[in-house]
Amino acid sequence: MGTAEAKVSLTGIKPTGEPHLGNYIGAIKPALELAGGAESIYFIADYHALTTVRDPKSLDQWTRSVAATWLACGLDPERTVFYRQSDVPEIFELHWVLSCFSAKGLMNRAHAYKAARDRNREAGVADLDAGVNMGLFNYPVLMAVDILIMDTDLVPVGKDQLQHVEYAADIAGAFNAHYGQTFALKIPKAVIPQEDSGRSLPGTDGRKMSKSYGNTIPLFAPEAQLRRLVRKIPTDSTPVEEPKDADASAVFQILQHFAPEADSAQVRERLAAGGMGWGDLKNTLFASLNDHIAPMRERYDALMVPGGELDDLLALGAAKARKRARPVLEQVRQAIGIG
Amino acid sequence: MGTAEAKVSLTGIKPTGEPHLGNYIGAIKPALELAGGAESIYFIADYHALTTVRDPKSLDQWTRSVAATWLACGLDPERTVFYRQSDVPEIFELHWVLSCFSAKGLMNRAHAYKAARDRNREAGVADLDAGVNMGLFNYPVLMAVDILIMDTDLVPVGKDQLQHVEYAADIAGAFNAHYGQTFALKIPKAVIPQEDSGRSLPGTDGRKMSKSYGNTIPLFAPEAQLRRLVRKIPTDSTPVEEPKDADASAVFQILQHFAPEADSAQVRERLAAGGMGWGDLKNTLFASLNDHIAPMRERYDALMVPGGELDDLLALGAAKARKRARPVLEQVRQAIGIG
Repeated sequence: MGTAEAKVSLTGIKPTGEPHLGNYIGAIKPALELAGGAESIYFIADYHALTTVRDPKSLDQWTRSVAATWLACGLDPERTVFYRQSDVPEIFELHWVLSCFSAKGLMNRAHAYKAARDRNREAGVADLDAGVNMGLFNYPVLMAVDILIMDTDLVPVGKDQLQHVEYAADIAGAFNAHYGQTFALKIPKAVIPQEDSGRSLPGTDGRKMSKSYGNTIPLFAPEAQLRRLVRKIPTDSTPVEEPKDADASAVFQILQHFAPEADSAQVRERLAAGGMGWGDLKNTLFASLNDHIAPMRERYDALMVPGGELDDLLALGAAKARKRARPVLEQVRQAIGIG
Repeated sequence: MGTAEAKVSLTGIKPTGEPHLGNYIGAIKPALELAGGAESIYFIADYHALTTVRDPKSLDQWTRSVAATWLACGLDPERTVFYRQSDVPEIFELHWVLSCFSAKGLMNRAHAYKAARDRNREAGVADLDAGVNMGLFNYPVLMAVDILIMDTDLVPVGKDQLQHVEYAADIAGAFNAHYGQTFALKIPKAVIPQEDSGRSLPGTDGRKMSKSYGNTIPLFAPEAQLRRLVRKIPTDSTPVEEPKDADASAVFQILQHFAPEADSAQVRERLAAGGMGWGDLKNTLFASLNDHIAPMRERYDALMVPGGELDDLLALGAAKARKRARPVLEQVRQAIGIG
C-alpha cells in the first residue's frame, strides 16, 4: 500500500459550523500547504460531528459547506483522496473490530471524556457520566479507525489531539500483538504543525475569532456582509492624524494575513506616521479580503448549488477512499477469522 | 416492513463452540418450533463472538458449523432470513449512530460488564476495568442494533438476556424522542420461551451438559464417537435384575428427548421391573439418538464441504438481510442529516 518512500498524510475535518476566516487562516490554509510532498487524504468527519450536532439540517448543511469550502480553497479532488466519513461503511465495521481490541481503561482516560466528567463535577452533578453518550466515549476508537483504515503515515494534529494518535498506535499494537503484523510496521506518527499562536485571527469583537464567541466572519460571506462585518471590528478613538500602533489593531492583524507583505508594511508605516484613519484601514482590509476571497467564493457558490458538482466530487472521493479501505478491512477480517 | 398483523421474530446465535446435544434440545429445537406463526429471522452473531473468541480458526469453524447445524436441523433458508452478522455492514454503521444515543450510564449497569467487574473485585484486582475491552462494553448497543435494524416484533430470549431487549427499547426511544418516530411505534417485546429447566440435558459426567464442563456430546459426532460418548455417561452399579429409577438416570433423561413417548414409557417400565441393565439402556439411547440424528448429520456433513452449498445459502441470506436493513439505515440517515 504505497511505496516505502511515499508518505501519506491524513486530515480530518469536523463539520460543526460554517467555515470562517479564522478556520481558513488557522486550519484550512496550513493544511493545504502542508500537503506538499505527502500523498494527501482529507475527510469530512460527519459521523464524529453527530456526537454533538443533533440538528439534521445543520449537520447536512455544514457537511456540504465544509466540503465545498476546502475544494474552493484549493483542495484538488483529483490528486488527493477527499471523502465524507459516512460514505465509507468499512470504517464502521472496523470500528467494531477494533473496539474489541481497545481497553476500556484507555477510554476512561481520554481527554474529551474526562472533560465531560469534570464539567459534571464542577456543576455538582453526582453522576459524573450524566449526559455522556457512547458516541463520545467511543470517539477515540473511531479516530483510530479513521487513521488505520487509510494506512496513514502522518496525521498532522495539534497538541490537544495528540492523544488520539497515541491511542491509534496503541490499539493497532494490541491487534498486531495478537494476530501478527496486520497494520504494517509503521504506526502513524503525528506531525504537529507550527504553534497555533500567530495563526489565530481576532474576530469582530477583538477577541480570538471563534464560533463560541459569536464573533466570526464567515469565509464566504457575500460582499455586502463582509464589508459590514469588517466595519464592526472595534477600534479606539485615535483621530486620523495621530500615530497608531499597527500591531495593537485587530483590523491590521487580519490584514497581515491577506495583503501582500509590501502592502501591509506600507500600511504599518502610514499608521505610525498618523497618515491613516481606522475607516481607511478597514476599507483597505475589506478590499484585500475581497480580492483574496472573491475567486474562491465564486467556486464555493457554484459548488453549493444543489445537485451540482459537489455530489460528483464526493462520490469520486468515496470510491477512492473505499478502494483504500477495503483491502485493510479484508486483511483484518482474514486475521480474525471472519468471512 | 411487514403488514400490521405479521409478527417478525429474531433469534441471534453466538458461535462460541461446536453445537452439542444440549444446544439442540435447549435452544435449536425450541427456536425452530417457535417460528410457527411469525416471520422468522435468524443470524449468526460472529462479530459478537469476537469479544471472546480470539482464535481465527475457531471463529471461522464455529461460525460455519453453527450455520450448517441450524440448516441441518430444519431451518428453511427460503422461508426465513438467515445470515451472518458480519455480512451486513449496515449493522455497524447503525451501531455508530445509536452509540451516539446510548447513555454511558446504561452500559455501566449492563449485566455482562458488571459481571466482569465483579470477577476483578473477587480476584482482588484494583482496576475493576482490567481486561475489559470496548467490544464487551459496547455489546448492548450492538444487540440493540441487531434488533432494531431488522424491524423486529419478537425477540425470544431467556431471562438473562431480557436486559438487552429493554436496552434496545430504551435506545430506540431516545432516538425517536429527538428525531421523531423513526423506529416505528412498536418497540421489540421479548417473548420468553418455557423455562430452561426441563430443557437441559445431562452430559457425559452426569452434570448439566455444558461446554464449560467439557462433558458435551457433539450434535453431529460420527456414529462411533457418539456410541463411545453414550457409553461414558455414568451409571450406578445396580445389577441388571434389580429395579431401577428411570428418572434418576442421566441416560434415561436424554433418551426421553429423543425416543417416541411410547418407547420411553416402555423402557421406564422395564427399568422399574428389573428387566433392563444399564448397558442395554445405553444401547437403546444410542440407537434412538442415531436414528434421530443420522439424516440431519448427513445434511450437515454435506453443508460443511468447503466451497459448497453453505456459502450459497449464506450469500442468499446476506442479500435478504441487507434488503431489510438498508431502508432502516436509510431512514435513520435521513433523520440525522447524513448523506
